[in-house]
Amino acid sequence: MSKSNNPIRFGIIGCAVIARKVSRAINLAPNATLYAIGSRSIEKAKKFAADNGFCETVKMYGSYNEVLDDPCVDAVYVPLPTSLHVQWAVMAAEKKKHVLLEKPTALNLADLEHILKACDSNGVQFMDGTMWLHHPRTAKMREMLSDAQLFGQLKSMYSSSTFSETLEFFENNIRVKPDLDALGALGDTGWYCIGAILWAANYKLPNTVMALPAANLNAAGVILACGCSFHWAGEDSKVATFHCSFLSHESMDLALYGSNGSLHLKDFIIPYQESSASFDFVSGAKFKELHIGWNLKPTKVQVFLELPQETLMVQEFARLVNIIKNSAGHPDSKWPEISRKTQLVMDAVKKSIELGFKPIDL
Amino acid sequence: MSKSNNPIRFGIIGCAVIARKVSRAINLAPNATLYAIGSRSIEKAKKFAADNGFCETVKMYGSYNEVLDDPCVDAVYVPLPTSLHVQWAVMAAEKKKHVLLEKPTALNLADLEHILKACDSNGVQFMDGTMWLHHPRTAKMREMLSDAQLFGQLKSMYSSSTFSETLEFFENNIRVKPDLDALGALGDTGWYCIGAILWAANYKLPNTVMALPAANLNAAGVILACGCSFHWAGEDSKVATFHCSFLSHESMDLALYGSNGSLHLKDFIIPYQESSASFDFVSGAKFKELHIGWNLKPTKVQVFLELPQETLMVQEFARLVNIIKNSAGHPDSKWPEISRKTQLVMDAVKKSIELGFKPIDL
Repeated sequence: MSKSNNPIRFGIIGCAVIARKVSRAINLAPNATLYAIGSRSIEKAKKFAADNGFCETVKMYGSYNEVLDDPCVDAVYVPLPTSLHVQWAVMAAEKKKHVLLEKPTALNLADLEHILKACDSNGVQFMDGTMWLHHPRTAKMREMLSDAQLFGQLKSMYSSSTFSETLEFFENNIRVKPDLDALGALGDTGWYCIGAILWAANYKLPNTVMALPAANLNAAGVILACGCSFHWAGEDSKVATFHCSFLSHESMDLALYGSNGSLHLKDFIIPYQESSASFDFVSGAKFKELHIGWNLKPTKVQVFLELPQETLMVQEFARLVNIIKNSAGHPDSKWPEISRKTQLVMDAVKKSIELGFKPIDL
Repeated sequence: MSKSNNPIRFGIIGCAVIARKVSRAINLAPNATLYAIGSRSIEKAKKFAADNGFCETVKMYGSYNEVLDDPCVDAVYVPLPTSLHVQWAVMAAEKKKHVLLEKPTALNLADLEHILKACDSNGVQFMDGTMWLHHPRTAKMREMLSDAQLFGQLKSMYSSSTFSETLEFFENNIRVKPDLDALGALGDTGWYCIGAILWAANYKLPNTVMALPAANLNAAGVILACGCSFHWAGEDSKVATFHCSFLSHESMDLALYGSNGSLHLKDFIIPYQESSASFDFVSGAKFKELHIGWNLKPTKVQVFLELPQETLMVQEFARLVNIIKNSAGHPDSKWPEISRKTQLVMDAVKKSIELGFKPIDL
């Protein structure tokens, strides 16, 4: 992929596993380049660079601060444990670095608002690392869901995001440690369910959030599995439920039911393959005479890609940064607002669990 | 299809739309024959027989009682509105007729227990009209779910059963009338969701049933749409949710998530077509290196049929009746017990809705 003349220069702070995927995405994005990597020690940074075959020109730093202090770094990607997000994302913004922040964005809405305020007052772009929103399949789904004839009014939604982990994970992984990723499965996989449900509802917040008995917590109180229901009142009333877990086999389901049609997919977060992706859609299904079958089956709607979804995310982020950097533009509020609503709903889910599955009014 | 020497002779009381499907099933079943049809007037019975091309030998009666008094009738199929089930099913049992009762079996568990007691004390077989349980696909799913390596421990479940109706339906259909089918969508489509979840849980009752905000009721208080969550506590803990509705496009989804695999189908109640049916199954799915795709996709498991599922239901019912009639056997308790548990859980869902979505302990 040939690079544009002035690609946005990324620094990465932290050598998390996910940073391997995103560094590849930065390398593949035509308008971005990987400029620096910072870890808590220079040895870690060097090992990460070697393991991932980084270009020799990528700068290596033995601290996060050095990345933020490098005047050539335009933007930072922050894949640190969630508990460290507020500290480092705020510092990055204060050093005028645009912030691509891994999800969940923060431990709670107050922390995220602190981050967003810092980005806003420093004029830097914010985006969280939710990749599937940038997949062209997502745009195609939106197009079909918006068709009042084909899909009609959205009535109910379901999402499941789960994976099954080893004993080693439950003992050692940061995602089950209260001082690192205290939100556990809710923050990790539940983020996607909440995000997908809000996306489908055109980011209208539900009126009521009620977690479902019973959540599965580890001894330290970190969520290993939980579920929740949402209700939107009024003319356009609808409902949703989700289940997220570290205790079930891999799943990434999204099912949306409208008055005239329905949409299903089982790989919404990470598509089965990179080059193409699909979803099932059906509209106007009825029973045949005597109810001995259906008049039609769902159709597989396929979408092809030239760049992987995470590269499209980096490309979109770099596009917005470029407008600010080179055309005196302002940060786009769309992406921080999506993050804010997702985090707000996540806070409500957590509160409902803490209150013993009581309904929370938003 | 050639008939056995002494087919079980069915009477049908009531000319509901569903009776057309079941009369066809009786005609197709090798061990059953349609013997009599009773309606509130002889004209209705005659019209129903003519409309459905019944054999001229089928007796026609202008009352339900005449069917029950005919000594040649072995078994009755009861497709009457739910509010009439207890009266007519009990009377049928008292007249020593085996009872195939349309679902929902009763307005509440007390009524169903009245029916089951009458069947038990009169030595007649009881079965409800849930057809999908008799499909060979259901047996194949059970086989794969029971495989501890392939599927592992059942962790979560989701079911949706919905259809979208016309204004005419909401004004006139018996399924939204409080004096006829007071359970509305919960009794009609929710019956299947509850049944599927109990089936998947091997009929172990959940510890907690909690309906989800908010149920949609019509002016007369009949449920048009609702959802519910279930929780099983202990070593083998698991959760489930369902959504049932008269307000959404056709859906019949069942998704089951285990520790090692998952199973999905979108036509579990009425398969897309009669001659074959399938479900999606995947086990051991993992992400590829860098999490840029999956190592494998779900496989379509296909099952072929010689007889439609409703015919298999009639055949199984007639087989049990034949054992009692010709081999001095006793009624099989499996089917009434499945009905009883389904109705018991349905009662709890309704109670939770009435209490404002409070958890109900079973």
